[in-house]
Amino acid sequence: MPGPNVSGEFTKPVRTAGLMSKPRSEEAARVVPELLAWLKNRGVKELLDPESAAYAGRGDGISREAVAAASDLLIVLGGDGTLLSTARASIGRDIPLLAVNLGGLGFLTSIKVDQLYVQLERALQGSYNIGRRRMLHAELWRAGQSIAAWEALNDTVLTKTEIARMIDLDVHVDDHLVCVYRADGLIISTPTGSTAYSLSAGGPIMFPAVAAFAITPICPHMLTNRPVIVPDESVIHVVPGDGPSTYLTIDGQVGEMLQHGDRVVCRRSQHFLNLILPPDMLFFDVLREKLKWGGR
Amino acid sequence: MPGPNVSGEFTKPVRTAGLMSKPRSEEAARVVPELLAWLKNRGVKELLDPESAAYAGRGDGISREAVAAASDLLIVLGGDGTLLSTARASIGRDIPLLAVNLGGLGFLTSIKVDQLYVQLERALQGSYNIGRRRMLHAELWRAGQSIAAWEALNDTVLTKTEIARMIDLDVHVDDHLVCVYRADGLIISTPTGSTAYSLSAGGPIMFPAVAAFAITPICPHMLTNRPVIVPDESVIHVVPGDGPSTYLTIDGQVGEMLQHGDRVVCRRSQHFLNLILPPDMLFFDVLREKLKWGGR
Amino acid sequence: MPGPNVSGEFTKPVRTAGLMSKPRSEEAARVVPELLAWLKNRGVKELLDPESAAYAGRGDGISREAVAAASDLLIVLGGDGTLLSTARASIGRDIPLLAVNLGGLGFLTSIKVDQLYVQLERALQGSYNIGRRRMLHAELWRAGQSIAAWEALNDTVLTKTEIARMIDLDVHVDDHLVCVYRADGLIISTPTGSTAYSLSAGGPIMFPAVAAFAITPICPHMLTNRPVIVPDESVIHVVPGDGPSTYLTIDGQVGEMLQHGDRVVCRRSQHFLNLILPPDMLFFDVLREKLKWGGR
Amino acid sequence: MPGPNVSGEFTKPVRTAGLMSKPRSEEAARVVPELLAWLKNRGVKELLDPESAAYAGRGDGISREAVAAASDLLIVLGGDGTLLSTARASIGRDIPLLAVNLGGLGFLTSIKVDQLYVQLERALQGSYNIGRRRMLHAELWRAGQSIAAWEALNDTVLTKTEIARMIDLDVHVDDHLVCVYRADGLIISTPTGSTAYSLSAGGPIMFPAVAAFAITPICPHMLTNRPVIVPDESVIHVVPGDGPSTYLTIDGQVGEMLQHGDRVVCRRSQHFLNLILPPDMLFFDVLREKLKWGGR
Repeated sequence: MPGPNVSGEFTKPVRTAGLMSKPRSEEAARVVPELLAWLKNRGVKELLDPESAAYAGRGDGISREAVAAASDLLIVLGGDGTLLSTARASIGRDIPLLAVNLGGLGFLTSIKVDQLYVQLERALQGSYNIGRRRMLHAELWRAGQSIAAWEALNDTVLTKTEIARMIDLDVHVDDHLVCVYRADGLIISTPTGSTAYSLSAGGPIMFPAVAAFAITPICPHMLTNRPVIVPDESVIHVVPGDGPSTYLTIDGQVGEMLQHGDRVVCRRSQHFLNLILPPDMLFFDVLREKLKWGGR
Repeated sequence: MPGPNVSGEFTKPVRTAGLMSKPRSEEAARVVPELLAWLKNRGVKELLDPESAAYAGRGDGISREAVAAASDLLIVLGGDGTLLSTARASIGRDIPLLAVNLGGLGFLTSIKVDQLYVQLERALQGSYNIGRRRMLHAELWRAGQSIAAWEALNDTVLTKTEIARMIDLDVHVDDHLVCVYRADGLIISTPTGSTAYSLSAGGPIMFPAVAAFAITPICPHMLTNRPVIVPDESVIHVVPGDGPSTYLTIDGQVGEMLQHGDRVVCRRSQHFLNLILPPDMLFFDVLREKLKWGGR
Repeated sequence: MPGPNVSGEFTKPVRTAGLMSKPRSEEAARVVPELLAWLKNRGVKELLDPESAAYAGRGDGISREAVAAASDLLIVLGGDGTLLSTARASIGRDIPLLAVNLGGLGFLTSIKVDQLYVQLERALQGSYNIGRRRMLHAELWRAGQSIAAWEALNDTVLTKTEIARMIDLDVHVDDHLVCVYRADGLIISTPTGSTAYSLSAGGPIMFPAVAAFAITPICPHMLTNRPVIVPDESVIHVVPGDGPSTYLTIDGQVGEMLQHGDRVVCRRSQHFLNLILPPDMLFFDVLREKLKWGGR
Repeated sequence: MPGPNVSGEFTKPVRTAGLMSKPRSEEAARVVPELLAWLKNRGVKELLDPESAAYAGRGDGISREAVAAASDLLIVLGGDGTLLSTARASIGRDIPLLAVNLGGLGFLTSIKVDQLYVQLERALQGSYNIGRRRMLHAELWRAGQSIAAWEALNDTVLTKTEIARMIDLDVHVDDHLVCVYRADGLIISTPTGSTAYSLSAGGPIMFPAVAAFAITPICPHMLTNRPVIVPDESVIHVVPGDGPSTYLTIDGQVGEMLQHGDRVVCRRSQHFLNLILPPDMLFFDVLREKLKWGGR
């Protein structure tokens, strides 16, 4: 498939590998020391985030941002949550990322732990394909100026904060009114995020190479309010109505309470996550396994 | 919005207008003579399809293909069905098309009859925007060769033919297995077709500028089989299983019974439908009106 | 249809009518004085809730519970929200209720304001049918005892309280495990509530006479988690998991933060709401009008 | 749970067991001779349908109706298809039925083959619970009279017969218009059928004891056309419109082409299927296993 998957671009040799680990994971506690020994044996230096450092018994580690800034390769040990956090920490660092799943298979962390060293060996040799995952840039505008901005790998979500009260969300794409949604909330999702919260809310599955966003309402009052797919060249404006207060969430991890008159503006990011793809577990293979779809 | 909407490209003066009319329509019977007088008054020659000729009392008319071949502008009087047929008849003719709705508002025929002359006046002056709707190219392969091909504006659909028997459909995107669907059928839809049959089957709404196809199963046996969006650069292969026989339909209008071993291959077409856009009734305006979505 | 609709049981003459009004409604402000004059003219005494009293300029009124306790007929002026509150206030008072909609048509308040006096005249004559709407009894169990109980007309809802965190809900019907739902929440709905929040979350529409509850998950993580219908003779137990905290809501109006180890038990109530049915706007008529379904 | 599950009513000793087997099943070919030996050893006489007789090498067998007429217990070896056919063949015979699944777990055939003899032993001792599954009675009315009638265990389905043409279906419940559906078809389902075709079309799951039918449209043109649940005391009338022809199917196995002016009338049947329930695989256990729902 043409599109975001590329090979041969990350030819820089791996001198330093950065480790990002999931907290409170027995599996990570087991893997980290073993992995450090393996890297040392290959002559690769390591940088450890605080969690990885704790598992290794090597002090406090350094921030994920600092790890990402000085590594040639990132190794994520965890689940999709650890990956989302790593994605934000490595914004602007155009480096490959090897995402190993500890526990069940993840949509993003599709390398199982028993394949870690095989895949790592290939990564050190530069022998791999990259799935480039375009991120979403969200800005919060208040009183005529942009007061905050984020890059999301999965989604930007606006939700009600008061129990049992729907909110109104006025959505424009470019300068055209789409709809004033009355709903529990609204998800603006990248293709990568289409298998996350948007899927639970009834959104379609988007192949990563689709240059589009999905706008998926959460429990809409209007039964005809189906998910809408718009090109990722679009600029999406969401303005909450005057009613109950609304909360903004980025990738389900960071957030902000909105004020009356706020405007959330979403567009495609200049940034990508560079996911190392295991050759035998591509997008649809992960889907089939996770969703128990039929194979042959 | 960047993408398929362009202006200023169809600067060729309109010397000949082609008329395509819906059969058995009292409204068309009323409009056609009036429209011919209007065109004559403007010095525009007309070409009539058989239906339009009958309404005008001017003999047999000529085939829609012949009308499209010799016109500078096509005027469709009818509903989305007449437009779909016109789209196929005008394949390869890169001319603008004014689609007037007789009856309810259509997703494609968004010009109401009371705006016909205002929009036509603008069209004669070349003062309009065009919505370019990319079509889908479908081929039927049998015994190693392509034996038929079609261009679809909305969709290519494979369905069961036997009542109460699901069919198995093996779907590959490029060379990767997506899934073997067990279902009543499968819809491969363009963005234009996303508001047609695919929507009834649970598919999302795709803005026309999205460069993608939707693959939507019809009553899938597997509850996790959600609609899948793939880039329109993809090549989609569908191979029916050995069970009950399968029927192939193009835009709900032409079809073919499939044989054991057949393969349907879908990719983006080289052809577009050039829809004249009324300035006050763009895509989301039509959606809001047809689906009773909330406005301000 | 057999079932909850009965006639001729409420033969007690109407000596006192109780008024319950929607707050901050210009329409109610207009109707209340007019209605009081009409009642006086018919020799019917009135009792006013605080809102109605304010519209009438007659002091503070009395609580809705007190109104319900001493009235032979309740007149609700408002929307479904006012009706839900009235339903709880009149628990145990087996009196008919005339629900007039101010504003759009409501699923429950299906009498439009221009029909108020026609329907009221029929009510005074005892010439009407009653739609008996069975309520749901919910109890909160903590540390082995029931610490609170409510009657719901629409639904009992358990939801996440933390943004972007799903909750786990262990659901048993009678003594059998249904499922441990991982979701944003769960709705246990009466037939009456099936056209409210449950419908937005993907639940089916239940005719009022169906003796059943719908268990509808909100944005479930598991795509196969469809709404489940169980007999209203069932006892449903819901126990939140150890994760993020969970909030319990009754009819979207009253609620309680749950603690670790709490158990919510739902069963059918002994109480009914006795809704006076306008003869020309029965359940499916309201549905067709509100949901824009096709008629003949 | 109260409702259809009863015990102790089928105390008649089992002198004759009837066998109904799935055609072309290697598993059945293996099990049938073994089962006959087991029965002989217990002193139980057997009656064989044609399929079972073929597997046993004992001639032609007798019709399923004849087997059901003279047996004290029916043993179904197959899947849900064999069971549906047995249900129709045993209408009016109030005997228990042991449904053994050959292959994957079925919603109805929930006894796995390795439990056959354990369950059969319990059945011979009369030590079992029965799940009584209420059937649906469908009649076809033409020119003012009932010309055919069927009993369905799962569903009565009306579908389009012409590819790519929706049909109009006028549905009344008792004497009230529900809606004129424009759709690919309509499913009227018992609780037992709610996990079959209705589920694929978006219907809810109904616990067997719910005294109701689900009316589920197939790919409705109107997006607000949600599944509707009505009491099983209702009489449902469906009248196809004047357009493309419509086909009627009972349990996906028998059918009839409808003519202009035909009317299909559905109501609850006087008949039940008496399913022997394995104590460790009740309704929700089967659901959880088949739909991969979460357990503890």
